[in-house]
Amino acid sequence: MNASVSNNGLDPSRLAIHQISLLEQCSFRQSIELFSSKNIPATGVWYDKLHEAGIDEARTIVADHGIAIPAVCAGGLMTHRNDLEFHKSIDRSRRMIDHTAEIGGRSLVVLAGGLENGEKDIDYARKRALEGLARLVEHAANTGIRVALEPLHPMVTSLRSVLNTLAEANDWCDQINAEGILGIAVDTYAVWWDPRLDEQIARAGKRIFGFHISDWLADTRDVRVDRGMMGDGVIDLAAIRAAVDATGYDGYYEVEILSARDWWQHPPAQVVETIKQRYQTAM
Amino acid sequence: MNASVSNNGLDPSRLAIHQISLLEQCSFRQSIELFSSKNIPATGVWYDKLHEAGIDEARTIVADHGIAIPAVCAGGLMTHRNDLEFHKSIDRSRRMIDHTAEIGGRSLVVLAGGLENGEKDIDYARKRALEGLARLVEHAANTGIRVALEPLHPMVTSLRSVLNTLAEANDWCDQINAEGILGIAVDTYAVWWDPRLDEQIARAGKRIFGFHISDWLADTRDVRVDRGMMGDGVIDLAAIRAAVDATGYDGYYEVEILSARDWWQHPPAQVVETIKQRYQTAM
Repeated sequence: MNASVSNNGLDPSRLAIHQISLLEQCSFRQSIELFSSKNIPATGVWYDKLHEAGIDEARTIVADHGIAIPAVCAGGLMTHRNDLEFHKSIDRSRRMIDHTAEIGGRSLVVLAGGLENGEKDIDYARKRALEGLARLVEHAANTGIRVALEPLHPMVTSLRSVLNTLAEANDWCDQINAEGILGIAVDTYAVWWDPRLDEQIARAGKRIFGFHISDWLADTRDVRVDRGMMGDGVIDLAAIRAAVDATGYDGYYEVEILSARDWWQHPPAQVVETIKQRYQTAM
Repeated sequence: MNASVSNNGLDPSRLAIHQISLLEQCSFRQSIELFSSKNIPATGVWYDKLHEAGIDEARTIVADHGIAIPAVCAGGLMTHRNDLEFHKSIDRSRRMIDHTAEIGGRSLVVLAGGLENGEKDIDYARKRALEGLARLVEHAANTGIRVALEPLHPMVTSLRSVLNTLAEANDWCDQINAEGILGIAVDTYAVWWDPRLDEQIARAGKRIFGFHISDWLADTRDVRVDRGMMGDGVIDLAAIRAAVDATGYDGYYEVEILSARDWWQHPPAQVVETIKQRYQTAM
């Protein structure tokens, strides 16, 4: 082992790699086969890939390779003012919950949604998303699938999520009050800058259903798809991991790197090997 | 007047245009001459331009044209771990305070600073910036210049400012406790997404020393220099302005648009005319 790096002793059986980390390189099947061959025990499914493969085929692939599915990404996006659009969005997420169950997944990751074209009332958008979330949670309760509400970074407020802090995610969970069904996905990329981070991770406690990991690059060039490999950025990943672990979190450490200019351009096996190495040295 | 737009009746004498809105087009002198010819009563000085012009020359230009200087941008950047670098940074900002006084300016806008290369301890960086701020405030108190602490958007946490919310800016002001000397610059671009925005604007109250205005573009392509003209983005500027006004704020509405791909490419007179129009129709 290289003397300049440390081995943090993280349990390899807790490593998950999200399919979106190989968005450009692998189909649903190819990613599962690759993870299996590299002894990666779990993945976060990217719903578009699941849809391409088809539910029956996907279920078979997953079962054949014994890969765990802690999360399917991502449902929600429920900020439409128009009732028809709003309910279409909820129906779509209900189907995603059903599909999550059908492939043996554990949680559907849910995003609030951004601001529609022309919408400037962010308070309204937040109320609307909360209303949609409550409806999804009702459906989830009937299926055994958990809903993991994920706040996103404030730089994608208008594009993807008017929910931008763990504090507000905790508030929404308090309001809906569905313990064991509604929880939170903590994403290092979204929350690392938050001065209330430690306090709100502790408050989330058993609500933490997922823990997504990537790094923030100092020279970030895109608001959505320029995330960094662990160790290549500025986030104190070990500190955030320790705070999450201190809540009793015993789920997967889910590596989710959206990287159009870098990691989506590499051979997928190399990406997986790099993640395995950095999992031991950079978080 | 176009029937599709409304005239909000904003007082033209409260419009300021920051020099950085014409960063690529105008020298210090050129921008002041342009603002004067277009009846813009005030500007936020960009310190690099002031430095280029020289203090004596700048003072003369400003006085000759009767332009008010609510703000000089931007000092601070005080997160260095190394004592020598830290004190150099403070000394530089002290000189900026002196220069602000020499050209008849009212406030120095101060940024916390980001994360140095290799620094991952954001709590330390915040403590360091607060320590630096306290020293600057001591100096400001001796000069009659005010310090306007400006939280920046969380997407520039590592580049420019580990201070990212109005709540924390208010906390820092509470801790330093220098009423009338230390206050806050509220920038719509930095804070529009914050679920605690209204509450923290009200809490800031008389601390609001400056109010910077630009819009957030839905297709933002750069984390620093892709701000939008008022009305071209998603921010409810009128709502934020109303919240600021409700505190009793009677200072300038300071248009500060950093726009490498758009407004820095236009003839400066056209930019100023567009700002004047949008000032009446889009905020």
